[in-house]
Amino acid sequence: MSFNSFGRLFRFTSWGESHGPAIGAVVDGCPPGIALSEADIQPWLDKRRPGQSKFTTQRREPDEVRILSGVFDGKTTGTPIGLMIENVDQRSKDYSDIAGSYRPGHADYTYDVKYGFRDYRGGGRSSARETAMRVAAGAVARLVIPDVTIKAYLVELGGDPIARAAMDLEAIDQNPFFCPDPRAAERWAAKLDEVRKEGSSLGAVVECVAEGVPAGWGAPLYAKLDAELASAMMSINAAKGVEIGDGFEAARLRGEQNADAMEPGEDGPTFRSNHAGGVLGGISSGQPVVVRVAFKPTSSILTPVPTVDRDGAASEIVTKGRHDPCVAIRGVPVVEAMMALVLADQKLLHRAQCG
Amino acid sequence: MSFNSFGRLFRFTSWGESHGPAIGAVVDGCPPGIALSEADIQPWLDKRRPGQSKFTTQRREPDEVRILSGVFDGKTTGTPIGLMIENVDQRSKDYSDIAGSYRPGHADYTYDVKYGFRDYRGGGRSSARETAMRVAAGAVARLVIPDVTIKAYLVELGGDPIARAAMDLEAIDQNPFFCPDPRAAERWAAKLDEVRKEGSSLGAVVECVAEGVPAGWGAPLYAKLDAELASAMMSINAAKGVEIGDGFEAARLRGEQNADAMEPGEDGPTFRSNHAGGVLGGISSGQPVVVRVAFKPTSSILTPVPTVDRDGAASEIVTKGRHDPCVAIRGVPVVEAMMALVLADQKLLHRAQCG
Amino acid sequence: MSFNSFGRLFRFTSWGESHGPAIGAVVDGCPPGIALSEADIQPWLDKRRPGQSKFTTQRREPDEVRILSGVFDGKTTGTPIGLMIENVDQRSKDYSDIAGSYRPGHADYTYDVKYGFRDYRGGGRSSARETAMRVAAGAVARLVIPDVTIKAYLVELGGDPIARAAMDLEAIDQNPFFCPDPRAAERWAAKLDEVRKEGSSLGAVVECVAEGVPAGWGAPLYAKLDAELASAMMSINAAKGVEIGDGFEAARLRGEQNADAMEPGEDGPTFRSNHAGGVLGGISSGQPVVVRVAFKPTSSILTPVPTVDRDGAASEIVTKGRHDPCVAIRGVPVVEAMMALVLADQKLLHRAQCG
Amino acid sequence: MSFNSFGRLFRFTSWGESHGPAIGAVVDGCPPGIALSEADIQPWLDKRRPGQSKFTTQRREPDEVRILSGVFDGKTTGTPIGLMIENVDQRSKDYSDIAGSYRPGHADYTYDVKYGFRDYRGGGRSSARETAMRVAAGAVARLVIPDVTIKAYLVELGGDPIARAAMDLEAIDQNPFFCPDPRAAERWAAKLDEVRKEGSSLGAVVECVAEGVPAGWGAPLYAKLDAELASAMMSINAAKGVEIGDGFEAARLRGEQNADAMEPGEDGPTFRSNHAGGVLGGISSGQPVVVRVAFKPTSSILTPVPTVDRDGAASEIVTKGRHDPCVAIRGVPVVEAMMALVLADQKLLHRAQCG
Repeated sequence: MSFNSFGRLFRFTSWGESHGPAIGAVVDGCPPGIALSEADIQPWLDKRRPGQSKFTTQRREPDEVRILSGVFDGKTTGTPIGLMIENVDQRSKDYSDIAGSYRPGHADYTYDVKYGFRDYRGGGRSSARETAMRVAAGAVARLVIPDVTIKAYLVELGGDPIARAAMDLEAIDQNPFFCPDPRAAERWAAKLDEVRKEGSSLGAVVECVAEGVPAGWGAPLYAKLDAELASAMMSINAAKGVEIGDGFEAARLRGEQNADAMEPGEDGPTFRSNHAGGVLGGISSGQPVVVRVAFKPTSSILTPVPTVDRDGAASEIVTKGRHDPCVAIRGVPVVEAMMALVLADQKLLHRAQCG
Repeated sequence: MSFNSFGRLFRFTSWGESHGPAIGAVVDGCPPGIALSEADIQPWLDKRRPGQSKFTTQRREPDEVRILSGVFDGKTTGTPIGLMIENVDQRSKDYSDIAGSYRPGHADYTYDVKYGFRDYRGGGRSSARETAMRVAAGAVARLVIPDVTIKAYLVELGGDPIARAAMDLEAIDQNPFFCPDPRAAERWAAKLDEVRKEGSSLGAVVECVAEGVPAGWGAPLYAKLDAELASAMMSINAAKGVEIGDGFEAARLRGEQNADAMEPGEDGPTFRSNHAGGVLGGISSGQPVVVRVAFKPTSSILTPVPTVDRDGAASEIVTKGRHDPCVAIRGVPVVEAMMALVLADQKLLHRAQCG
Repeated sequence: MSFNSFGRLFRFTSWGESHGPAIGAVVDGCPPGIALSEADIQPWLDKRRPGQSKFTTQRREPDEVRILSGVFDGKTTGTPIGLMIENVDQRSKDYSDIAGSYRPGHADYTYDVKYGFRDYRGGGRSSARETAMRVAAGAVARLVIPDVTIKAYLVELGGDPIARAAMDLEAIDQNPFFCPDPRAAERWAAKLDEVRKEGSSLGAVVECVAEGVPAGWGAPLYAKLDAELASAMMSINAAKGVEIGDGFEAARLRGEQNADAMEPGEDGPTFRSNHAGGVLGGISSGQPVVVRVAFKPTSSILTPVPTVDRDGAASEIVTKGRHDPCVAIRGVPVVEAMMALVLADQKLLHRAQCG
Repeated sequence: MSFNSFGRLFRFTSWGESHGPAIGAVVDGCPPGIALSEADIQPWLDKRRPGQSKFTTQRREPDEVRILSGVFDGKTTGTPIGLMIENVDQRSKDYSDIAGSYRPGHADYTYDVKYGFRDYRGGGRSSARETAMRVAAGAVARLVIPDVTIKAYLVELGGDPIARAAMDLEAIDQNPFFCPDPRAAERWAAKLDEVRKEGSSLGAVVECVAEGVPAGWGAPLYAKLDAELASAMMSINAAKGVEIGDGFEAARLRGEQNADAMEPGEDGPTFRSNHAGGVLGGISSGQPVVVRVAFKPTSSILTPVPTVDRDGAASEIVTKGRHDPCVAIRGVPVVEAMMALVLADQKLLHRAQCG
């Protein structure tokens, strides 16, 4: 089966391939009466838009979104919101030479095995191009949870982490890496530029924090807030790992080290620490929700790699075309979007049962 | 909302609390004609059963499963399979003293906020007791994918990892830690015994490998094999992180290091490495599917921790009762069960669209 | 696939066969804090219980329901509610003779074709016995919509309709037919007794009215209130037709005859008629929701009918055992239960999006 | 909640309003490798297209469908199929005068109550315009079940039924009513023309027969083939009743009259009659699947009807604009489409569990 819908009550369904005429999404279940126009969505798409620095693919896509339904007199009507972005800069020829061979690390082989053939143009459906619609749908989701602030950034690139002490959220939008540590950003720029010139790529880790999430969101047991976040993040192209709160580091702590002590606060109980990442028993605790996502290095590289062709014969491949030397960079707005989509859905789920 | 069902086509729904009369599950969508009896389920439950060593809770539960429907003449009929386990050793008094306070790291506070009150006996619904039904349902799932072999084990405990070179799958069942490295098992035994006596706990990392998964299973884009696994694993009590293949380590590799080169094989293309963990573009590649899950240390510890009571007043809590000093140990059969449930579901999903 | 769950947010999953050890259901998504005990469910089960008159099967089932989870201190906790009824009076021998032949009108043939074999004891999963769990789950649903009053009754039996002018809801519980017209009840008694003695059966039509449903419930376009009701009612054993409001009669009216004129009322707009049956555009209008369900005559009859056996050879069958000469009678509480389940679900759906 | 998706595995999601820039749908879960182009869809849309006779609305819509994704080299890829139709002939002014009042029989009032306001242009989302996408998606569904033949037609208009003896399927496409009885078509033409001139409307009954459905399709208990059909048909605008097989007439038969006797046939068991309409226990029997749908008369009429305005004041309304004097006529291709969508879904569901 192909399951191109995400969410349970605030649900979006995406469609489209990298080199088709357009990509789109349907956002269903959005509450009515919310002010919405293209202007609320475009800025988030612009954050993700390619070609903004030498560290992202040079494909030129304006990524202009159109709202085709679900909005009347500037407000959501409660009916499905149709969104569409026309593909403009499609250089299919770039890909014609890889139609017959499997690019290691890509979905070429698995799509062929599963479906019998594939749309090889730019990776077709498996292209990160689809994430533009996640960002668009996420922009709508943000309007459903206006009191929640979502911020994602890179905390590690090519194995080089930021200095937590030097973290400055203001810096995030002042470098091409969404990096909160200016000095790390400088190191990354030098390193990634070098790697880029060598035709290789690097992996990175994105951290996302959602503040303002009230305690009580989460649908135990199999739609737990953290389980939904894990699914959402792992569904992003190139994602290989997800952590909530301390994540794998928590596995190295003792019980008393990991315990987030509580104390009385003016507006109810507060916590002295947040090892849990804002989720207890799959339900939000009122603390910031913290997620980290590991992205593998871009699989499209100029270094020749042994592979096989569609006939099963040995081959070697060099992936030309326009690629991101570090997909995690443009993954930042996508991670934010998935966080928004999960939280908007959980808000509605909570309201349904306990509202 | 409360979503106590897992799976899309091979779906199971669990019910029951730690200290209620019983816990149970309904397995829906199971193919007909599969030989099934309690004898196919009980061994897996026994692996998870508490009280088998000093490293797991001393609660004594026989965990005898009964099949109440869906089987006729020893074979599944295609109708829902009702499973039930009666709770036997319930010492509610153990928990009466924590009815009014919130145990840090537990779901006490969040359940109270979400639902207005909670069944505090043994954690009620949020207790790991529910995982017994996952193991039971997972045992049925294994029968749906007979060609797949699933094996989970601990690869790290309290920050002390096994030696990969010393890995011996035979050793897994010869120590109380499901540890494939005998010497690590010895170190862990000494350390955990000490920690246990101190009334504390340790976290650990479980690795699970599924061999025999054919290429082509996976439902892009939002029911990708890896996204489903991430959701399944993160829904397990105390899980804080999930990795597929190299996971976070992949974020530290360069493109050519991470690329799994392919070459012709007797039965089709083969891979020279498995950094991807058997999943490409959300679809199985035919390689072993590799997942790792990070478990935090048990939150129930004897060390006093500051907290608040239901009235919001400052308090301090010591969690008595019978607890696992390392919940990850009994998490091993649960991780295997979730892997089986995801794969059985994906097998049916694939058959539906491409069968 | 087997889909044994009903509802989207207020969802119940049933399991069990006619002659297994027990039948049960899991009610998931119920709001927390609702007072609930077996005493809230049993009366509805008693209405449906067999053996209460010569016009229903003589099978003796106490149908005593047990709540196994989801309730603490007498209130729902928001976690899944496990319900179970043990089967007591199972005379499997009654059915052994039909194991090899297909009873016309029954699911014997189709279950065999679909699943390869079947649990023939009392019809197994296809038995109306399962409807006991619908009634139990429906009793919980009623508590979620306390302001809604649901009443079902027979309006036609064996082609003999009640006199609308003579309708008296008080009379419903004063005859074995849930008939609101005492004189029709007398005619039906005479006729059905005769038919019963001849070993035959009759069909009937059940009408169900829900009052107190606020305007605004309904999830267009594919979970419209009327579409959900149609699905719910048609899923009941022996149901062959569903009408909303005037139903098929509406197809015989002119536009101006069918129009429900509106006028100002003290509490907002009111309607001068209710041809629509309380649903406009799939959303409740605030008028009574009116549904009618056609039940075919019981397929189990003593009249010999030509059929084939499992080997495909010509045969003839007489269905012994204990059967209802008119299944629609015991269908009345089931229709009420399905109405309650749909409305509770729609209430939560509405609250989620517009709450 | 707004649920604009239909189907479980072969699922389509529609979006768009009567007077927005476009309407569209996403067909997800379609098997790969099926030849598909606009030419496979357009003919079905043309059957439904308005303005083809004086008996349908004079709105002029070319209804040209575009496939925007999911097809490569002329074949479905297994990824979501994006479909879009641009709205051309939108005369919003026609509707401006009814923005403030509620048209009886329409969704105006209920949408306002549910969502707080509504897109009143042509009924917005509640307009029958959306059914164009059902027809488009249904055209794709037909390709998934190539051995199934689906035919719908009017069997009754304004209370005047066809003569079953005179039924001639060839005649269906030779009159503007999809009527299989030429003489009835003549009577209907005279009557409807008169009613149309009087500014009124008539209801009608559509019958749909699917031949070639193999025995075994259907997902008991809550996704039974007949329950899915009931939901599908009742979700169509103006539908008020659904029957399977003999439907309400079955409620007037005795057991032996209703029993479909079986006998040995060359390709397995055959039935001597089809009172059941091809469904037993929610599973197809191999006989033709027969459904009937009752459509109320168009609510948009020129006869003044008392109503209230948005402020709750008494008012009177005459619905100008371009309307169908009998919506059931254009409902015929929609009923066929919903039949195809349900059957394609059930085919995949069956293959998943029993394939």
